Amino acid sequence: MKAFFEPESAALIGASANKLRPGYYLFRNMANSLGDKFYPINPRLENIEGIPCSKSILDVQAKIDLAVIFIPAPSVPEAIEQCAQKGVKAVIIESAGFDEVGPEGKALGKRCLEIAQQAGIRLWGPNCMGLLNVHKSYIFSFMSSSSAWREQLIPGSVALVVQSGMLSAGFLVHIMSKKPFGLSKVCSIGNKLDVDESDLLQYFLADPETQVIAMYLESIARGHKFFQLAKSTNKPVVVLKSGRSPFGRQAAMSHTASLAQDDKVLDGAFCQSHIIRVRGMYELMDVARSLSLSPAKMMSTARVAVLTFSGGAGVVSSDDIYDQGMELARLSPETIKRIKAVFPEWMDPSNPVDLYPAMEKFGPIRVFSESLNAVLDDPGVDAVFLHIFALPIKEGMFNYDATAEMIQKYKKPLVVWMIGHAESIIKTTQELEKRRIPVVDELERGVRVLAALTMRR
Amino acid sequence: MKAFFEPESAALIGASANKLRPGYYLFRNMANSLGDKFYPINPRLENIEGIPCSKSILDVQAKIDLAVIFIPAPSVPEAIEQCAQKGVKAVIIESAGFDEVGPEGKALGKRCLEIAQQAGIRLWGPNCMGLLNVHKSYIFSFMSSSSAWREQLIPGSVALVVQSGMLSAGFLVHIMSKKPFGLSKVCSIGNKLDVDESDLLQYFLADPETQVIAMYLESIARGHKFFQLAKSTNKPVVVLKSGRSPFGRQAAMSHTASLAQDDKVLDGAFCQSHIIRVRGMYELMDVARSLSLSPAKMMSTARVAVLTFSGGAGVVSSDDIYDQGMELARLSPETIKRIKAVFPEWMDPSNPVDLYPAMEKFGPIRVFSESLNAVLDDPGVDAVFLHIFALPIKEGMFNYDATAEMIQKYKKPLVVWMIGHAESIIKTTQELEKRRIPVVDELERGVRVLAALTMRR
Repeated sequence: MKAFFEPESAALIGASANKLRPGYYLFRNMANSLGDKFYPINPRLENIEGIPCSKSILDVQAKIDLAVIFIPAPSVPEAIEQCAQKGVKAVIIESAGFDEVGPEGKALGKRCLEIAQQAGIRLWGPNCMGLLNVHKSYIFSFMSSSSAWREQLIPGSVALVVQSGMLSAGFLVHIMSKKPFGLSKVCSIGNKLDVDESDLLQYFLADPETQVIAMYLESIARGHKFFQLAKSTNKPVVVLKSGRSPFGRQAAMSHTASLAQDDKVLDGAFCQSHIIRVRGMYELMDVARSLSLSPAKMMSTARVAVLTFSGGAGVVSSDDIYDQGMELARLSPETIKRIKAVFPEWMDPSNPVDLYPAMEKFGPIRVFSESLNAVLDDPGVDAVFLHIFALPIKEGMFNYDATAEMIQKYKKPLVVWMIGHAESIIKTTQELEKRRIPVVDELERGVRVLAALTMRR
Repeated sequence: MKAFFEPESAALIGASANKLRPGYYLFRNMANSLGDKFYPINPRLENIEGIPCSKSILDVQAKIDLAVIFIPAPSVPEAIEQCAQKGVKAVIIESAGFDEVGPEGKALGKRCLEIAQQAGIRLWGPNCMGLLNVHKSYIFSFMSSSSAWREQLIPGSVALVVQSGMLSAGFLVHIMSKKPFGLSKVCSIGNKLDVDESDLLQYFLADPETQVIAMYLESIARGHKFFQLAKSTNKPVVVLKSGRSPFGRQAAMSHTASLAQDDKVLDGAFCQSHIIRVRGMYELMDVARSLSLSPAKMMSTARVAVLTFSGGAGVVSSDDIYDQGMELARLSPETIKRIKAVFPEWMDPSNPVDLYPAMEKFGPIRVFSESLNAVLDDPGVDAVFLHIFALPIKEGMFNYDATAEMIQKYKKPLVVWMIGHAESIIKTTQELEKRRIPVVDELERGVRVLAALTMRR
């Protein structure tokens, strides 16, 4: 697998000089990645932008670790044969037109696999967008080579695996523009003729740059292997598995030729192997980002304190906490005493703690700071859900540094949901996430994230 | 109920001259609403900003339709007695400190109710934020009187009822800043000593300015009445009911003294009375907004066509469509032929329709326009879910006007989910919502909204 993520040299079979074609984007991305260790192949071109092209991979003198193939499907088997002759051991097929288009494509795919296996080649794809190694700035994908989205790629600890192509590229751009978080590798694995999610999981479990593994899968090829791997690790594995329903299975078949398993059986296996199963793309991203930021606390039942500016939001969160199998923390007499100090006379603190009347009296900074300290100090509290109504206050909503210190001291996850003044939301989010305190956009997802952060592994 | 929403004159018992206090915001808001038909009451002030104050409501000579009370809870019964003497028939208590704080508060509330009932006064609250009549620009609430959020209040057809206070105000500001939509009335009803959700529902069913009713409730006081009313109407009623779980019920009790019912029983009643039950605040807002924009199509099983740029998003939506009891439409041969015309050779269209390869070939405008026309024309398609990857294209992503016309012609709901370039998302969203095509931020919610738009009523 190392040859895929860290090749010293690579060829592109199907490089294009047409700046509007994905074959050009691939050329540009790979040239930027590997410099003079990159060898574009195109029988009809002498060079592209000054970089000399070979007619065939066999004409390249240097050793080649990785070949990326992006030519029409019917020509792919021959290209793999040439890779075999050249001694290449890792091949990514990004072309579509295989199992997902019917019997003819299926036969093509079979042929590719046979050639590869005989030659000891690991095959990635087809029908995929390849991969990114963010720490090395390697982009082996036909995503647009414009710099706009690349600047938003931050090296970090989350490995993202998606079966789909466009979902990864589009989603990357989208999520990164909203709440940037650090990625180690991004993979689009397509039809999985050979390399599958188990190969990747195994690689990421050993990869020191990866601490959290997030996956969008339409099928799980080798379930036994996959679940055993997940069970063997302390690195959190978060999975969005589609093809849950008859409609989804049918769609997955025509998308990536995926044969999805019975979902109830899978659900049990997810649970037993401590995989965090999520239900949507946004949840996948929020949970993965939060796991990469916040301390996680493994326990069978987390006791959550909710600090809110809205009694109603507190009630809604209480329902969600119940749904997620967590508990509302019972605050200690000491904690209640401390919070009572900033409460109006007529009101006794209980969990969820409605801070609105207190904030009216003492202002948000003092109320947030004192109540946050109190619940983080409380040994009966395992995790905190904080609701902020963001106001344009120059000093910030509370003492972020002090809270971040307490979170690290007690290793208690704190998740923040925020509404309010648009600019203040953006600023406060930046301040919090800088201090590794995750912020979620939607109330309901905050509880889901807390559950992921306190799940037994 | 008319005296609450359309009073010709009103008094405020508890007007404050301190610009940092909610009692001042109330004063300012009511003065702006009613001009010289507004009578502030404060025994210690001659006037506030030139508007003369009376020492008691009994000192006001003019007839008063509505009294808003905002003084400490223990003094409220006496104030209601004076309202009774004055002949006021509608009273809103916005003060807190009643049933939600224990036995003493409970006794106070009981006393208030007795006085009101003897005098034939309808009582709104206590522990609430009052109401807004958006068409009349009436604000009888202690929400901040700064103009920032008021400018975002657009007269429209959605009535919003929340039991909680801050949730309404905070949420209003928040949602309106993201995707503005028109409101008719906004109500915060608090502890519901007298006026409850059934009174409001009855009023809104007869209110010509209201076409959609959206409610956040912690309890339903008179279930039989409420469900009968909902069943009697074609106006969609959307409800987020919290207190679903033991934790939520406990939190609801301390928030608005609400005694929540068994949730399974309620769920059945919701279903039978065609109430659209939602699970979160964001869903409540998206569903209500979409119902106010889009044609709704009532049927037992809606057949949905999904047009996407991402095979993976198509699979995820297929699962969600199944979960929501809808079906993936089987496209007619004619539709398939029309879409095939913009598809690459190797690919046959099926639902979900993955438009990405086609867009690579013909560009988004032609592909979106032709495939949208084809599925809207198809008699086997009841509703359409469109996924857009927003690009900075000057002419827009497709012919919005033509699509809007077809939607109106066939009365088929179209819901759009979008990711992509931030600026283009904002612009495309504005263009679409202007033409009454709802846009959702999250993939999963799009299907939920479609289900609400095609629900049998």
